[in-house]
Amino acid sequence: MALSLELLSRLESIVGSAYISTDVEVLKAYGHDETEDYSFPPNVVVKPANAFEIAEILKAANDYKMPTTPIGGRTGLSGGALCIYEGIGLSTERLNQILEIDEQNLQVTVEPAVITQVLREAVAEKGLFYPVDPSSMGSCFIGGNIAENSGGARAVKYGVTKDYVLNLEVVLPNGEIIWTGANTLKNSTGYNLTQLMVGSEGTLGVITKIVLKLLPKNSHNVLMLVPFFKAEEACEAVSAIFRAGIVPSALEFMERDAIDWTLQFVEGINVQVPEKVQAHLLIEVDGNYPEILMLEAEKILSVVEHFEIDEVLFADTEDQKNALWKMRRSVAEAVKANSVYKEEDTVVPRYMLPELLTGIKKIGAKYGFQSVCYGHAGDGNLHVNIIKGDLTDEQWQIEVPKGIREIFELTVQLKGTLSGEHGIGFVQKNFMDIAFSKTHLELMERIKHVFDPNNILNPGKIFPDNL
Amino acid sequence: MALSLELLSRLESIVGSAYISTDVEVLKAYGHDETEDYSFPPNVVVKPANAFEIAEILKAANDYKMPTTPIGGRTGLSGGALCIYEGIGLSTERLNQILEIDEQNLQVTVEPAVITQVLREAVAEKGLFYPVDPSSMGSCFIGGNIAENSGGARAVKYGVTKDYVLNLEVVLPNGEIIWTGANTLKNSTGYNLTQLMVGSEGTLGVITKIVLKLLPKNSHNVLMLVPFFKAEEACEAVSAIFRAGIVPSALEFMERDAIDWTLQFVEGINVQVPEKVQAHLLIEVDGNYPEILMLEAEKILSVVEHFEIDEVLFADTEDQKNALWKMRRSVAEAVKANSVYKEEDTVVPRYMLPELLTGIKKIGAKYGFQSVCYGHAGDGNLHVNIIKGDLTDEQWQIEVPKGIREIFELTVQLKGTLSGEHGIGFVQKNFMDIAFSKTHLELMERIKHVFDPNNILNPGKIFPDNL
Repeated sequence: MALSLELLSRLESIVGSAYISTDVEVLKAYGHDETEDYSFPPNVVVKPANAFEIAEILKAANDYKMPTTPIGGRTGLSGGALCIYEGIGLSTERLNQILEIDEQNLQVTVEPAVITQVLREAVAEKGLFYPVDPSSMGSCFIGGNIAENSGGARAVKYGVTKDYVLNLEVVLPNGEIIWTGANTLKNSTGYNLTQLMVGSEGTLGVITKIVLKLLPKNSHNVLMLVPFFKAEEACEAVSAIFRAGIVPSALEFMERDAIDWTLQFVEGINVQVPEKVQAHLLIEVDGNYPEILMLEAEKILSVVEHFEIDEVLFADTEDQKNALWKMRRSVAEAVKANSVYKEEDTVVPRYMLPELLTGIKKIGAKYGFQSVCYGHAGDGNLHVNIIKGDLTDEQWQIEVPKGIREIFELTVQLKGTLSGEHGIGFVQKNFMDIAFSKTHLELMERIKHVFDPNNILNPGKIFPDNL
Repeated sequence: MALSLELLSRLESIVGSAYISTDVEVLKAYGHDETEDYSFPPNVVVKPANAFEIAEILKAANDYKMPTTPIGGRTGLSGGALCIYEGIGLSTERLNQILEIDEQNLQVTVEPAVITQVLREAVAEKGLFYPVDPSSMGSCFIGGNIAENSGGARAVKYGVTKDYVLNLEVVLPNGEIIWTGANTLKNSTGYNLTQLMVGSEGTLGVITKIVLKLLPKNSHNVLMLVPFFKAEEACEAVSAIFRAGIVPSALEFMERDAIDWTLQFVEGINVQVPEKVQAHLLIEVDGNYPEILMLEAEKILSVVEHFEIDEVLFADTEDQKNALWKMRRSVAEAVKANSVYKEEDTVVPRYMLPELLTGIKKIGAKYGFQSVCYGHAGDGNLHVNIIKGDLTDEQWQIEVPKGIREIFELTVQLKGTLSGEHGIGFVQKNFMDIAFSKTHLELMERIKHVFDPNNILNPGKIFPDNL
């Protein structure tokens, strides 16, 4: 799809010549995110300054029926920001201000291009806590977190992005601007368009302001690493911890390979993994009273001791804690550095994790692929990295997708679904029929049509090709 | 609107003759809820046994373009279940089973007509906790809680109904049956129809199965009653408590009149209210460690002591706690017993409460009405009971609504909205233009049209008459 000079000139008059580019290198840079090795550059990149400019861009896009894809931090893992039909790449990067930290109401109002960690640190300085911590928080945008309904390690206790979004300013595809809700903790006033927008992957509108709920900050935490001799037992321990009445602030699972690859990839993490160890749980409890946290840690110990485990490592210093978290957060990059891979974001009720893990390994054996699994086990959210390794291109493109389909079928049988926190975007859309009936998908598509009758905003995402 | 014999006979063949009625007394009984003194009986009441029968009823309603209103526990406060265009009253009362308490995954699957308190007690027996506790929990249905996105006293710490709904089985207006999501804590798979359904007041589908998240049960709590000499200072204390880093499990506000009327109405509550006291805060903290709760209670004391207060009452026994909660939960009934009234469900960011309260009293003075205010102050959710008292019918029907409009305008100016937990239903729909632009309302109406093109399901609710 080529852009007419007329449209280009209209876009330039909206954003100014400094904020529009058709340079090939720029287009290429904006044409990928962290999803495998995909590259889908737009025809033009625009960098509007505010909601009004975004409104004008979307009006122009409607006039020319031009595909327009919102682009955030480009850290997505489902290809939600890829310009698969070219067209306009709409980068939100200039909307990057923290507008107000409201200490009276425990709220923050931000623009979408604020980096999640920057937001977390800014509110922490005021003694406040924004708990959502995706592994990419050092570079992802909060707007993208809302588009994908991102989670992270602390979701197990504190919930995901959707649980913190109170109100959104959104530019609708027709260029009108609305606030979806109110700045209140409770709201029973009409349909919940705020929650409809969260996780809609930039297909229903462009988010330009965000009001988030904050919590008072906790002062203490205890972190421990528990090595298991059997990976399935690590999964079983997860629900046993909850049944003992503990709600940990993080409960992460890492398979042996994930740890080995990460220790090779990241320098300076002093963790020894004995040969018999097949998986780790990284477990954190947090709160304001250290003596209570020690009690809870002891309760957790008494639960995991019912399984075959090696010696538990308690992180005694901040440095040790940071090293363990660095290890956990580096797994995805380490796997990526090791081989071409596909990452699936399966999620099931947490007690189903052992069955899911066993099933994934069986399916891998059937189709001849290796998988490395890790993730937010406390939520039942298992990231499955399928490794290309020595597979031929043919096996990779034909056999592996059959295996992935079987993994998702298993996930849905276990009352889970396709994505816990990465979204469907481009790469998972043709598996949507596994989770939803045709009726259900058509209902979603008609909602999309209500917002975006010309299908200009982020087309080719979420919905399967043959709907 | 009269029903043809043909349609009646079709409905009878669906539910069986024991579960259909056109008896005038029955119609009258199903024609009201707890909203003021409204009465809108349907032409026929049907009591289907399951989702399949509901699907057949909705297909018939579509064939005959017959208004059909889902009816639950009839405890609603916004008239969401009133059959304002007559037609079919669809009572869910026979779908009243707790289907599964899943102790492994901390979930419960229920039918919509389970009474909320019955649900809470059933899971408590297994050591689990469903925190949402609307004042009507002894008689309201969980299905109605979902339709209205109900809150309650514990929402301040634990959130409202929407925060516990994982997945819903819904009969769509065309008779098709879907599950909206998955039984998982995280979900980034397509548009969030689960959350679109929560709070949609029975206008988008009939909920027939519900999967709720549960928590491990806390073992202890501390409850205190703090009497303030100035009502505004009680409101100010609310946000001061949060800023001190405490998240109470309940933080309720009651004006002097609310308490006086309640103590007259309910017998056997041993609370003395000195003359100078103008308002109370009822404050609870909960957790597993009594010594920590005492620390937190002391922190709260040190916050409230900065205001002009009388002696704080600590509830030492279960009986005292129950008495205080009974007092709080009886306020609405006590006000109702005292006078005809209208109840508004305003909600603002919590720090705006003093300004809201002052504004409401000013508006009352301007239009000559008395108001009694109480509610979930920790959430910024203030129930405003406007008392008819000695007002003439003309004042009641013409002047008072002008005042209510001003109250809602003030609420929205303070970044709040019309309803925190009661819904819009029938009685608040003509105030919706205060909170939403025409664009926004039309967007919601087009979503309604996607689900229900013939507008048969609960027509005349949420949307203003002149949209």
